[in-house]
Amino acid sequence: MIASVGSPGVPVLDLDLFRARVEARIEQFLDAKARAVDTQRLPAPAVESLRAFFRAGGKRLRPLICACGWLAARGGRETASLIRVGAALEMFHAFALIHDDVMDRSDRRRGRPTVHRLLESDFSRSHPAGDSARLGESAAILVGDLSLVWSDELVHTAGLEPAVFMRVLELIDRMRSELMFGQYLDLTADARNGAGPELPLTVIRYKTAKYTVERPLQIGAALAGAGEGLLADLSAIALPLGEAFQLRDDLLGTFGDPEVTGKSQLDDLRAGKYTALIALALGDADPGQAAVLRGVLGNEAISDADADRARQVLDETGAAARVEQMIADRYRRTLTALDRAALPADADQALRSLAHDAVWRRS
Amino acid sequence: MIASVGSPGVPVLDLDLFRARVEARIEQFLDAKARAVDTQRLPAPAVESLRAFFRAGGKRLRPLICACGWLAARGGRETASLIRVGAALEMFHAFALIHDDVMDRSDRRRGRPTVHRLLESDFSRSHPAGDSARLGESAAILVGDLSLVWSDELVHTAGLEPAVFMRVLELIDRMRSELMFGQYLDLTADARNGAGPELPLTVIRYKTAKYTVERPLQIGAALAGAGEGLLADLSAIALPLGEAFQLRDDLLGTFGDPEVTGKSQLDDLRAGKYTALIALALGDADPGQAAVLRGVLGNEAISDADADRARQVLDETGAAARVEQMIADRYRRTLTALDRAALPADADQALRSLAHDAVWRRS
Repeated sequence: MIASVGSPGVPVLDLDLFRARVEARIEQFLDAKARAVDTQRLPAPAVESLRAFFRAGGKRLRPLICACGWLAARGGRETASLIRVGAALEMFHAFALIHDDVMDRSDRRRGRPTVHRLLESDFSRSHPAGDSARLGESAAILVGDLSLVWSDELVHTAGLEPAVFMRVLELIDRMRSELMFGQYLDLTADARNGAGPELPLTVIRYKTAKYTVERPLQIGAALAGAGEGLLADLSAIALPLGEAFQLRDDLLGTFGDPEVTGKSQLDDLRAGKYTALIALALGDADPGQAAVLRGVLGNEAISDADADRARQVLDETGAAARVEQMIADRYRRTLTALDRAALPADADQALRSLAHDAVWRRS
Repeated sequence: MIASVGSPGVPVLDLDLFRARVEARIEQFLDAKARAVDTQRLPAPAVESLRAFFRAGGKRLRPLICACGWLAARGGRETASLIRVGAALEMFHAFALIHDDVMDRSDRRRGRPTVHRLLESDFSRSHPAGDSARLGESAAILVGDLSLVWSDELVHTAGLEPAVFMRVLELIDRMRSELMFGQYLDLTADARNGAGPELPLTVIRYKTAKYTVERPLQIGAALAGAGEGLLADLSAIALPLGEAFQLRDDLLGTFGDPEVTGKSQLDDLRAGKYTALIALALGDADPGQAAVLRGVLGNEAISDADADRARQVLDETGAAARVEQMIADRYRRTLTALDRAALPADADQALRSLAHDAVWRRS
């Protein structure tokens, strides 16, 4: 999403290089775990499935945003500590995705079988079919738990100076509680209980705006010794940006070009995802339009024609246009917050580039 | 299990009082979370289900063992930090049990519905039956995750001096990885793949000896500034004790008096639990005896008569007697390690009392 700080000459912190270093750090960490597991005759698949998960790719968005926070606090060149904390954020994210896939019973992630499916096929060699599915899910819960505690281990061994360490732990504690609450709300959010658009907006706030943008940005800044003023400025930049990012995601999920997004336009509808888009449309729909939406939401059997009709309702109720407007409003608030914060040039430029790409992307 | 340090006069640290203070600390912590959730309109059941879980009781074994470690390192009277870390150990344990119950699909824990069952019944008011079971499990995974990250928050806010803090975090990191590996091995341990008794003994080592005894004891000692020598002494006391404790548990699970244990003698057999007892019996069984055991293990439909026949095989193969012998050996090793360690009188007495009660209990 963001390639590098685009300043001329040699940038102080090359984000592409930083991403590669974070990935190498994760590889090294898991290599050491694999060796320990081998020596102690512990179960190899617990580590191997996690390694395969990381090798399948990912945008590494949270480490990159963490690096932007570091630049915002004039951290300068990247340090081993910054790379380690970046790796920890990515390893925490792996935990969240692995558990999420178990909860959603998803089959695929990043173009490969999800961790529980991968483990299920391992178990199917030694166990009956019914057992292996259940074992795969249980083992994936444990692999997710391992990824969470290992993300902590990466932070604990980052060699941080005590005051910085405490500040970072406090932000991580907040980030983790916020994500869990966001996930919990998301799990229980449902078109059937007739909640308005406030509920999906709260989910977005906790699951994306705070978890993906605000906290990683603040953690990076805290690593470079940022004070409360800067952390508050970064929050003002991050929250509308994260919201715009997720609202764009919701629009692309239903209106995006499958050739470009790589995802079917039917997935979100089939899953019955209760987005702000859907909530707004249901709020303004006449009985016929509401019936169309309720007929497709959470319905596994819908066709392309059903999805077309649903999209038409999302357009006709004005919901899609209102979400576009919400995105534009939030983008503007991000830029205004960036103007006010007057960050160092490299951080400002990286965040503007990130914001632009995140909000106006087509995939 | 251990009531108090039984020294005459006023003990420096009353373990009954300590347990009550740990419980009060957890209540206060969750009260604060409940208030925050209320203010921010976050989902109340995420906190309430955890609160109900703690109120249902529990032995609080890990905090008590942690207090023994503290005494071993001459920590003196309990401090707010010790109570907070004890509460953190108990909150981490709640995470482990909540996830374990989801994985095992257990209906009851501590005489009450498990967290996922409790949440399922909440969801059943608003969702169709099939959905509510799945939602209950997913929500319980998240509640377990919350309990894990809150256990960290308790440690992070315990006001520990930097060097002690780092030492405690390192031990906690080890403890958590060890538990996950133990759980993973336990999940995949299975009479069908014909592993010998080494596998269940490895599970015992990681799941009980290290997780329940060794690490909590060392964490308590580290809180009082223990050096490496004492930590090694405590390890030598803890590992055989933890193994004996779990081996007793396995025997009680099949041979215990249900009136005393409060558990059916059929549960472990029905669950197909692959204990050292079972592994030893399968190793020495003749074809007829092996067929009896394989017929009951993991068989939901077994009767009391089937269980009687299985118990007969466990006796006739000498497996039950060998497990008794293993328990006695380990108990003796614990006492020898206690002799060698020459701990302060209060710690020595508390650990001997704990060891005796844990190993020779009837429930």
